[in-house]
Amino acid sequence: MDLKAYLSEKQMMVDQALREIYPEPQGPAEALIEAMRYSLFAGGKRLRPILCIAAAEAVGGKGPDVLPVACGLELIHTYSLIHDDLPVMDDDDLRRGKPTSHKVFGEAVAVLAGDGLLTEAFRIMSSPEAANRFEPSTLLRVICLIAEAAGYKGMVGGQTADIKLEGKDLEPALVEFIHTHKTGALIRASAASGAILGGGNEEQVKAITSYGESIGLAFQIADDVLDIEGDTKTMGKGVGGDEQKKKITYPGVHGIAKSKEIQKDLVERAIKDLDRFDYRADPLRKIAVYIIERKK
Amino acid sequence: MDLKAYLSEKQMMVDQALREIYPEPQGPAEALIEAMRYSLFAGGKRLRPILCIAAAEAVGGKGPDVLPVACGLELIHTYSLIHDDLPVMDDDDLRRGKPTSHKVFGEAVAVLAGDGLLTEAFRIMSSPEAANRFEPSTLLRVICLIAEAAGYKGMVGGQTADIKLEGKDLEPALVEFIHTHKTGALIRASAASGAILGGGNEEQVKAITSYGESIGLAFQIADDVLDIEGDTKTMGKGVGGDEQKKKITYPGVHGIAKSKEIQKDLVERAIKDLDRFDYRADPLRKIAVYIIERKK
Repeated sequence: MDLKAYLSEKQMMVDQALREIYPEPQGPAEALIEAMRYSLFAGGKRLRPILCIAAAEAVGGKGPDVLPVACGLELIHTYSLIHDDLPVMDDDDLRRGKPTSHKVFGEAVAVLAGDGLLTEAFRIMSSPEAANRFEPSTLLRVICLIAEAAGYKGMVGGQTADIKLEGKDLEPALVEFIHTHKTGALIRASAASGAILGGGNEEQVKAITSYGESIGLAFQIADDVLDIEGDTKTMGKGVGGDEQKKKITYPGVHGIAKSKEIQKDLVERAIKDLDRFDYRADPLRKIAVYIIERKK
Repeated sequence: MDLKAYLSEKQMMVDQALREIYPEPQGPAEALIEAMRYSLFAGGKRLRPILCIAAAEAVGGKGPDVLPVACGLELIHTYSLIHDDLPVMDDDDLRRGKPTSHKVFGEAVAVLAGDGLLTEAFRIMSSPEAANRFEPSTLLRVICLIAEAAGYKGMVGGQTADIKLEGKDLEPALVEFIHTHKTGALIRASAASGAILGGGNEEQVKAITSYGESIGLAFQIADDVLDIEGDTKTMGKGVGGDEQKKKITYPGVHGIAKSKEIQKDLVERAIKDLDRFDYRADPLRKIAVYIIERKK
């Protein structure tokens, strides 16, 4: 299979579904809807929704069925970027080559756009459009799993640790905590939710969850490495920012060579998790490799 | 029935349920959990969860059954207060007589505590604890309704309009938009979700939703009036702040006397909505009156 064609096909599918969710900005809260759309259509790779779709297909499910949940995952991811970029957080001016939300809309609307996207994620995931495609109890299980991964036990907890521990000398265990929570948790939940909604049995769900856990961590380590080795133009944001801001990174704790070794091991482990799956898991296998070989 | 005893009994029930949800702060994200708890246990009246419980009881349901959803509503309300108080929003130092979240934990953790509470609300509402008590499809309907009320079409939209239009001369229609969205939507959803989860028929749900709509608007008008007539000690926050900040309020647009007339009409309309209900709707009736007669 051709991964590039696969990714671009699924990306278009997700973009189309996202466009259908949103009305044109209007009314007294016009600025809010505009800001939500601005970040949502700022050129994201749609990795999380694609993982959800690919996981559903790997267990024999239909990709398009999971779109409401896949879109919800992208909304949650997008909100987290807007809030992370705020001056009181990472204070970033550029994201995917474009000015960040607060630079365009001001900080108040940026906070609210994040809030709006996060809330809207749960609306879409619980909407009749989603509820009519799955057993309601299965959908509830997935919503709960995603909320847990996105919340204080997952992504928000990881971001807090990242902010609070910035500039400190760190144990390897702490940098692992930050990465598995801040980035890993939602990626793992994306794969897991696809496997559940696609009708996978518990063994399959467990295997794909483990796969998601490994590539989630690998993804963030690759991000750290790209921040050092990438170039601004390809990345669409400043490079070298992590070191400047004394961010806690794998290369910072383990060095570049060791970090690359760790990410390679993680990808091998992820692919091994898929041992019992047939060709329908090929996209997941190739995505695992792509995650550490991408240039942005 | 004695409303004071009723409110205090239900408040204790909600507080107990909220305490059970939260672990002691620990681990690298300790500050986040501490901040979430700080605002959650800062002396809230628990109006939204109590409305949810009272609406469930009004249609013959069991109050304690709706606790996971009632707690979710309080988490959403609490997150909105934390974000509204931020320096980039309303910039408030005091809330319920205590320093606001960003004053105690810093702005970054305050943003994250809000994000954590909002996300956790949806986790609790979709958790097995909730899912085992109701038809899963009914619970999904309620989650979707609450998400819509809390999101860009409701509360977040209202807050955006409030921020964007601050200091401008306003049409009565715009101040009504702000109040019905910023405050009214979640109050309406609290009553509606209780009626649905309590097993009300569609006519009952419609009546209680309409009740919630009226008291939601009345509540915010009463807040505006209290900001002028209340005293700082009873209110637990500075008074006169609305005028100082050029906030858009009912007294600002209609004058005090007319505002009080409007809120009285709304309460009468709300009580009329409950015409076909028996004594089990008495708490809802009394809450409607309490909402405009309270001193804080």
